[in-house]
Amino acid sequence: WGTKKSHREVKLYDLYQTQMADPAVETVLAPLRQAVKQQGDLVRQLKASGAPELDVKTAVAELKTRKKVLEDKELELMPQSSTFDRSKMEDLLKRRFFYDQSFAIYGGISGQYDFGPMGCALKTNMLAAWRQFFILEEQMLEVDCSILTPDCVLQASGHVERFADLMTKDVKSGECFRLDHLIKNSLEKVAAEKNATAELKAECQEICVKLDGMSKEEMAEILRRFNMKSPTTGNDLTDPIEFNLMFATQIGPTGLIKGFLRPETAQGIFVNFKRLLEFNQGRLPFAAAQIGNAFRNEISPRSGLIRVREFTMAEIEHFCDPREKNHPKFVDVKDTHMMLYSACNQMDGQSSRTLAIGEAVATGLVANETLGYFMARIHQFLLKVGIRPDRLRFRQHMSNEMAHYACDCWDAECLTSYGWIECVGCADRSAFDLTQHTNATRVRLAAEKRLPEPKTMDVTEAIPNRPAIGKAFKKDAKAIVEALATLSISDLQSLENSLNESGCFELPLGSGSATLSKDMVSVRTASKTVHVEEIIPSVIEPSFGIGRIMYALLEQSFRQREGDEQRCYFSLPPVVAPLKCSILPLSNNPEFGRFVKRISTELTGSDVSHKVDDSSGSIGRRYARTDEIAIPYGITVDFDTLKEPHSVTLRERDSMGQLRIPLADIAEVVRRLAVGKCLWTEIEAKYPKFEQQESSAK
Amino acid sequence: WGTKKSHREVKLYDLYQTQMADPAVETVLAPLRQAVKQQGDLVRQLKASGAPELDVKTAVAELKTRKKVLEDKELELMPQSSTFDRSKMEDLLKRRFFYDQSFAIYGGISGQYDFGPMGCALKTNMLAAWRQFFILEEQMLEVDCSILTPDCVLQASGHVERFADLMTKDVKSGECFRLDHLIKNSLEKVAAEKNATAELKAECQEICVKLDGMSKEEMAEILRRFNMKSPTTGNDLTDPIEFNLMFATQIGPTGLIKGFLRPETAQGIFVNFKRLLEFNQGRLPFAAAQIGNAFRNEISPRSGLIRVREFTMAEIEHFCDPREKNHPKFVDVKDTHMMLYSACNQMDGQSSRTLAIGEAVATGLVANETLGYFMARIHQFLLKVGIRPDRLRFRQHMSNEMAHYACDCWDAECLTSYGWIECVGCADRSAFDLTQHTNATRVRLAAEKRLPEPKTMDVTEAIPNRPAIGKAFKKDAKAIVEALATLSISDLQSLENSLNESGCFELPLGSGSATLSKDMVSVRTASKTVHVEEIIPSVIEPSFGIGRIMYALLEQSFRQREGDEQRCYFSLPPVVAPLKCSILPLSNNPEFGRFVKRISTELTGSDVSHKVDDSSGSIGRRYARTDEIAIPYGITVDFDTLKEPHSVTLRERDSMGQLRIPLADIAEVVRRLAVGKCLWTEIEAKYPKFEQQESSAK
Ligand SMILES: Nc1ncnc2c1ncn2[C@@H]1O[C@H](COP(=O)(O)OP(=O)(O)OP(=O)(O)OP(=O)(O)OC[C@H]2O[C@@H](n3cnc4c(N)ncnc43)[C@H](O)[C@@H]2O)[C@@H](O)[C@H]1O
Ligand SMILES: Nc1ncnc2c1ncn2[C@@H]1O[C@H](COP(=O)(O)OP(=O)(O)OP(=O)(O)OP(=O)(O)OC[C@H]2O[C@@H](n3cnc4c(N)ncnc43)[C@H](O)[C@@H]2O)[C@@H](O)[C@H]1O
Repeated sequence: WGTKKSHREVKLYDLYQTQMADPAVETVLAPLRQAVKQQGDLVRQLKASGAPELDVKTAVAELKTRKKVLEDKELELMPQSSTFDRSKMEDLLKRRFFYDQSFAIYGGISGQYDFGPMGCALKTNMLAAWRQFFILEEQMLEVDCSILTPDCVLQASGHVERFADLMTKDVKSGECFRLDHLIKNSLEKVAAEKNATAELKAECQEICVKLDGMSKEEMAEILRRFNMKSPTTGNDLTDPIEFNLMFATQIGPTGLIKGFLRPETAQGIFVNFKRLLEFNQGRLPFAAAQIGNAFRNEISPRSGLIRVREFTMAEIEHFCDPREKNHPKFVDVKDTHMMLYSACNQMDGQSSRTLAIGEAVATGLVANETLGYFMARIHQFLLKVGIRPDRLRFRQHMSNEMAHYACDCWDAECLTSYGWIECVGCADRSAFDLTQHTNATRVRLAAEKRLPEPKTMDVTEAIPNRPAIGKAFKKDAKAIVEALATLSISDLQSLENSLNESGCFELPLGSGSATLSKDMVSVRTASKTVHVEEIIPSVIEPSFGIGRIMYALLEQSFRQREGDEQRCYFSLPPVVAPLKCSILPLSNNPEFGRFVKRISTELTGSDVSHKVDDSSGSIGRRYARTDEIAIPYGITVDFDTLKEPHSVTLRERDSMGQLRIPLADIAEVVRRLAVGKCLWTEIEAKYPKFEQQESSAK
Repeated sequence: WGTKKSHREVKLYDLYQTQMADPAVETVLAPLRQAVKQQGDLVRQLKASGAPELDVKTAVAELKTRKKVLEDKELELMPQSSTFDRSKMEDLLKRRFFYDQSFAIYGGISGQYDFGPMGCALKTNMLAAWRQFFILEEQMLEVDCSILTPDCVLQASGHVERFADLMTKDVKSGECFRLDHLIKNSLEKVAAEKNATAELKAECQEICVKLDGMSKEEMAEILRRFNMKSPTTGNDLTDPIEFNLMFATQIGPTGLIKGFLRPETAQGIFVNFKRLLEFNQGRLPFAAAQIGNAFRNEISPRSGLIRVREFTMAEIEHFCDPREKNHPKFVDVKDTHMMLYSACNQMDGQSSRTLAIGEAVATGLVANETLGYFMARIHQFLLKVGIRPDRLRFRQHMSNEMAHYACDCWDAECLTSYGWIECVGCADRSAFDLTQHTNATRVRLAAEKRLPEPKTMDVTEAIPNRPAIGKAFKKDAKAIVEALATLSISDLQSLENSLNESGCFELPLGSGSATLSKDMVSVRTASKTVHVEEIIPSVIEPSFGIGRIMYALLEQSFRQREGDEQRCYFSLPPVVAPLKCSILPLSNNPEFGRFVKRISTELTGSDVSHKVDDSSGSIGRRYARTDEIAIPYGITVDFDTLKEPHSVTLRERDSMGQLRIPLADIAEVVRRLAVGKCLWTEIEAKYPKFEQQESSAK
């Protein structure tokens, strides 16, 4: 990160075309596509024939490698018009303090960043746009939940057990390496050595291909076989260690309540499901949303904001009846065209395709309207904040890469110099989480739905003998009767079995339990007329990584002025630009002051964030400085401003076009531009051009 | 917290009068005032005569007790017109999910709260207002820094050593108690026992009075002498333990980097001081601000949102030249009248006084314009969000209660049913933090100031003998020469002394040190012409506890309808109200639907958050429901709406006044009301009253 890296020129694609127009390009790609397809077919066949899991995994790993080769070649052959210099951008981000490493004066810690005034304003604006676009427009229920989360909650969600990566440690220095990365790098070196035989090379390659599907033991075996050492010190390495990515701490002074910093905001919403359902007057569907920080103790954070240890997420949990996944507003978005990269296309070696989401849902490519609706809204939002449509795609997870809770998943990926990066995950988590928390707490996280008509059905219940229970348990009797009423079908079965077999039953109660005998409770099945049914809602979850979107956006909007490569800027849309406007007095003539002040006061009154730059640089230099921090509009107060009727120059950052605008109009014009109520072209049509040439660098 | 508590009626004061008008009241208070003043004078005298610290502390503790007695009596005698039922308010907050205990389905953890849709919207609106009022209007530099903070940073800031409370543990159950609270409660019980002698009572009282000034050892002695046991189990207690209030964790997989969750956001700003100064082009003064979460592992969290374990702060650090604490915008606020409770008044048994801040600064009561400016801005902000001026005061810290870093401090306190609660601290931290981090990192956190004219002065420097150092230290030579260049005056003095006395000097270097001999370095003082001077800025810090302000605001705005005490609502101002408007179709007549939809779309287009309530309740009941969640305006679509010219009813929450407004105007009228661009009275003057009576409860 930052200045020390040598300048690395990365290709930049003007148009990521999904249907490769050029037949010559297709000729090169054809055999690679074929190789992917062959392997994809093999995977399908293995799955269909119920082959052993390891065989499937191995085949999938090979599939992924072939996909990667194809994708790299596709990117390489794409038409390109300019280059992107990542170091140059990073220097600018550092120099104008968009963001930078945290605690740098103390040496810093990797994977942690502080946002300076410009980065912070960009983030704030992006979150405000998000809130407007999702929460207000869709009337979602926003919540703000605790970050410190007790162990039991994350046990139930599966994070304590499964949210882990494998690593290995340098036995002397204690340095840690993510195991799969270490093996891969180490084998690549082995294979690249001069005296490596063709056989050895092939073996290394095969292991790399299979790595993703390997168990802890298999990886340990490879570490030993190749006698791998620490790449930085040459010391020995430990056996593989499972490393949980959550930060642990203790809550309260006793040291007894173990807790973690939440690794995602979603769980806070799930544990509040009952309150939210009640707030929504018991009705489905509804969506809850949360913006907040999540923490992951990544083993090796890298790639700037893309893999960090604390980051801001914005998550939506849309709860709906699993049998009713249509969406009333789907018709409003059905014509949204998006680049879709289906699991099937991935297995067949095809490129992604641009499709209307309505068609994707109609043909079953996207499972249901609700999922499709959110994908379209994610797409619209990303474009709104400035992501380029030709560098945005939705990639469907293949069945083997889905998280433990998901049953379908499409990632919104943005193209950056690091490749395609997942920025928003959009998963159907089905009823996984609510079920897990219900099992752990015995609080039923479910909704009731009125049946179209009452139904007569057999209902099994525990029938308490209140006097007997009261006599035996005194003040606990009430809790026992309540607990009996909430038993599930399978609990009731155990109760009945236990009473029959041993004459008594252990009823779990708070942290303890109560022993009930046959005379205290019985189980009865009777026919009843019911008017409602209980359903555990499905959850569709769009999950936004705000830092990653910001990074992709900064890369995609980084520009160098033609003919002057030192003059860089970010072409951020006004809605997210850190500041909307600059006010620049042409010189330090004291008469300009009161106009500057007047404009500044008016802009503040219209809530337009702005910056006065009355420093001594030439106007061209000051424009360049405001361009660097992405300010889209600049107001210049000059000698003509002093004359009646007073007027100022308004300059637009990307085109460098300048217009002459009456002082009386300027605040309102800028306000309308800044909030997106009108476009620069409309303003251009209305006011005269200002013809003086801006010199490109001074 | 919540429903289980018996309803407690707390007095509610309509007007907290600073000058008690009623002479009868003053007669009662006079002896109490006298008692405080006597003790205050004693404290002054002890300090002036340089009495031992313990004597001063004991006297101060007695002073505090007398102050408390006076304040309680003042509150008791205040004119009052209504009562406040805290349980009723808490029930409403729970029922409509403003906020509630986190992880309740898992039993919950004290000191953690989740904000539901209404609480979250209130918080979001309050933060947006804060950002607008402080950051945008004052063009502050907003940052967003890491929460996980490495040990070394909090060592330097003093938090690792000093951010601790004393506690004691139940030896068997492990339950923890804050030591001072436990002793106080326990002695109060002892004194209240029937057979307690007058002597014993007096002793208990004396100890309570002295508690605040006691050392760990003295408290341990009291625990033993009274043989104190756990109040909940009767078990033995441990000796006092110093308990650091920060949550500890490990950063990175090695387990070697110790870190804490930040206990305040301020340190993130201080460690970024250099970048921020540079962003501000090297100029002082400037202010940086940060909104974010802080974490404190409180020993016994209580009083709802007032003492919790994670909370949102909004902090400002205003950096200025210590000799120039005037403020250019002070003239804009100088007439702001505020209730000030000076340290002096506190010692003299006087009440607080309402004063213009201009006068307070002019008379030296408030130390300087910058401090005064921020106090006035805090005051304005709190009123803007709805805090009542008669329940807001600024209390100056007495010299003994200042935090380790502060040199003057005024707390904005709000009156609640828990008494006066600190909601915003406004401290002059002087150069404490920047100095500490400079010492710890040897990175000079200072600003340069151009002198009015160049000055010739004696400059003391370390003169390295480069060849000798190079020969002795090889590749470390460069670091040594650099380290020598950054030595402070006192470092240079030590260097000179050490060279003279022992012929060598240990230069600290990174984690180790280097031994320099006389031939490698010397100290020289020479006359030099300098154009700039280096200053370590002073820091003025307004620090807002957002949760506490929210709580005070909710209490102060809680209302019961006259004649119908079951009908409660919050009279929150539109700027912070969770939703600005409701849309209520009078009945389920299908023709109303398209008007509801049209109004909703228009309100969304104007960014007005709102809620459609088309549930089946009577209109009166639905009004009551929207009142409960503090919605200030309600639009009703009724049969007259269907007729041309279309119109609707607009109702105001507090007055329940209703107006008839053309459909074409309604969205704009509500938008203007919601953002505070116009007042209800102005709308009332313009549109006809709607005369139908609202029945109070149905
Ligand atoms: N067959 C195959 N072919 C191609 N690719 C395959 C593949 N199989 C797996 N992959 C890819 O490999 C990657 C898996 O690597 P991981 O390392 O597990 O995933 P990740 O990118 O860190 O995010 P994750 O997926 O855990 O984020 P989550 O939704 O919880 O969190 C939600 C959001 O939070 C953000 N986020 C998560 N971790 C972050 C961090 N450390 N720093 C910043 N933002 C982060 C992100 O924006 C994310 O969208 C994925 O990108 C996956 O698509
Ligand atoms: N002689 C005397 N006479 C009368 N009173 C005396 C006195 N001597 C001492 N006191 C009072 O006793 C209290 C000291 O008790 P503490 O328990 O130390 O102080 P506190 O109220 O928890 O906040 P603190 O002061 O630490 O907050 P900070 O500025 O860091 O943090 C800034 C803001 O964060 C918020 N905050 C801090 N801790 C919080 C928490 N746990 N939960 C929610 N908000 C919190 C608050 O709004 C706070 O303003 C103070 O209120 C003080 O005024």
